Amino acid sequence: MSRFFSAKYASLQAYTPGEQPRDAEYIKLNTNESPYPPAPAVVSAAAREAERLNLYCDPACTELCKAAARLYGLGPENILPVNGSDEILYFSFMAFGDERHPFAFPDVTYGFYPIYANVNHVPAHIIPLREDFSIDPEDYCNLGENIVIPNPNAPTGMALSVSRIEDILRTNPDNVVIIDEAYVDFGAESCVPLLGKYDNLLVTQTFSKSRSLAGARLGFGLGNPALIRDLNTVKYSVNPYNVNRMTQAAGVAAIESLDYYRKNCQAIAETRAYTIGELAKLGFETLPSLTNFIFTQSPAIPGGTLYQALKERGVLVRHFGQPRTENFVRVTIGSRPQMDAFLDAVRAILKERGL
Amino acid sequence: MSRFFSAKYASLQAYTPGEQPRDAEYIKLNTNESPYPPAPAVVSAAAREAERLNLYCDPACTELCKAAARLYGLGPENILPVNGSDEILYFSFMAFGDERHPFAFPDVTYGFYPIYANVNHVPAHIIPLREDFSIDPEDYCNLGENIVIPNPNAPTGMALSVSRIEDILRTNPDNVVIIDEAYVDFGAESCVPLLGKYDNLLVTQTFSKSRSLAGARLGFGLGNPALIRDLNTVKYSVNPYNVNRMTQAAGVAAIESLDYYRKNCQAIAETRAYTIGELAKLGFETLPSLTNFIFTQSPAIPGGTLYQALKERGVLVRHFGQPRTENFVRVTIGSRPQMDAFLDAVRAILKERGL
Repeated sequence: MSRFFSAKYASLQAYTPGEQPRDAEYIKLNTNESPYPPAPAVVSAAAREAERLNLYCDPACTELCKAAARLYGLGPENILPVNGSDEILYFSFMAFGDERHPFAFPDVTYGFYPIYANVNHVPAHIIPLREDFSIDPEDYCNLGENIVIPNPNAPTGMALSVSRIEDILRTNPDNVVIIDEAYVDFGAESCVPLLGKYDNLLVTQTFSKSRSLAGARLGFGLGNPALIRDLNTVKYSVNPYNVNRMTQAAGVAAIESLDYYRKNCQAIAETRAYTIGELAKLGFETLPSLTNFIFTQSPAIPGGTLYQALKERGVLVRHFGQPRTENFVRVTIGSRPQMDAFLDAVRAILKERGL
Repeated sequence: MSRFFSAKYASLQAYTPGEQPRDAEYIKLNTNESPYPPAPAVVSAAAREAERLNLYCDPACTELCKAAARLYGLGPENILPVNGSDEILYFSFMAFGDERHPFAFPDVTYGFYPIYANVNHVPAHIIPLREDFSIDPEDYCNLGENIVIPNPNAPTGMALSVSRIEDILRTNPDNVVIIDEAYVDFGAESCVPLLGKYDNLLVTQTFSKSRSLAGARLGFGLGNPALIRDLNTVKYSVNPYNVNRMTQAAGVAAIESLDYYRKNCQAIAETRAYTIGELAKLGFETLPSLTNFIFTQSPAIPGGTLYQALKERGVLVRHFGQPRTENFVRVTIGSRPQMDAFLDAVRAILKERGL
């Protein structure tokens, strides 16, 4: 830290992204990317836009909002596109949190929530998951605090039903409830249909996972027009041209390539079932995932040891050092050949240890 | 504002971007874009990257930092690429400002500084320009406050010499001095060579103007490694994947297309001299610009009236409503045919008013 850094951030612990090796030597199952390339129409739309980069992008993302409105069955006034869904989460902690308005979220969840609380000086109310790693919706009912819950949760992969989330929304009418649907397209139910009914609901989504656009940075906030106006006030006070020209065009084309993405999501769900089954044969216990990753552990090998042994064999997965989850690894569901390579590596690692 | 919006932002006045009409009916001289397309190598680099958007971008922007290090004669540890230079300004107000560490800047300057002060609850010390719209460096010497000065300044277009800026740096050793060089490539001197000498200097640059990349969103913070580390702490607490894959590739290619951009900057400087000369014949007084825009006024027609009349004739320029500058319009220097169309429109407007 330099001698100029503000004391207000003295305790700030920044986020550690998953490893992003720039060479191709690894089978990369550590950051929940799609194994499938973007749709051909997306590639050509982005490339076409590259010829006009001398002109600013539309700060209102007008065409993208219209396309997203069609996709979600909402109006453009319900939608705020952002530079990756991290940005809408950051804006939300800024807009709706302060010293008197804490945010509640699970103890085992997306690692950015405590950081967004910290950087915005918003108290964090951390609520433990149940013993089985599921969220107990009762814990969030009548809380009288802002709430952010990923559905499905990460890194567990486990989802709540929309009706249980509705209990949370109904019993916290004076607080914002954010449902982070980064992984919703792989099998869970979306809360978007509740938007007309609850003015305290903000749904966040990303095109990084199911839409194969992690490298383009595109997320959305979906909510009541008044919430979206607040978030726009923040956006226009931070970075009005936040979604670049190529990404706006890629987003529109991605929305128009719905069938392509649905097929990819279905393939990932099939590969997920296959991978969980094969791991079970090797003695692994995997939480019931509705995402494009699995959270799995074996009583025979610690998570950190498995992570390291896999890396030495050219397979990157993610290991989190926290107490409740230190025996687990999080494994992205890639293509079938990628998962077979991962499974082969696991088998070899167990064998070499006589397990 | 929704009933959920934090009271801490009750007085926040967000930024108003220049109009971005999405059709081509206007000659667009209102947002200081380059009239020249990005270099061919930039277009193909971005298009190539579009095929790999399923993979996250490198959050450290390793290749881009290396290329920028070559360009600026610095090390990669001196460089932080951002999603447009607005983002590095926002990060800097976050990192170095707080209630006890105000930021000083001119009264007539980039409209985002007071907003970044406001959104971060940093007191703003606003220092008037001289009568001739120049910055008096004496006003900033021995100030004991953080300072942000655009060099050249916007919307005046007027620049300080590096030696006068050095006085400011030397006499404020315990505060960060940000020199915002968004427009430096059109004729002013850069402070980058001072970086080895002053650990309190942060230079910000953008590829939006001289590099024809406004729509890609790419800016840089250049400074002492300790300052860059602080700004990285902020970045990794806000949005680690802030510069997307296509823009990183476009940035590297833009750096490698140096001759192309130098020729464009020279053409713009020539067109600027021509435009100022033609306006002088029509009775306009133009401040001495070293940027890709001019700030001009006529005693014969109010700035707001001229702005509106030009818009009706299909030419967009920018008018700011502030007291000291309300008689001025800011006109981006486009191509020679664009400026001839602008000048024709001005002549017609004056004629129709009998001026």
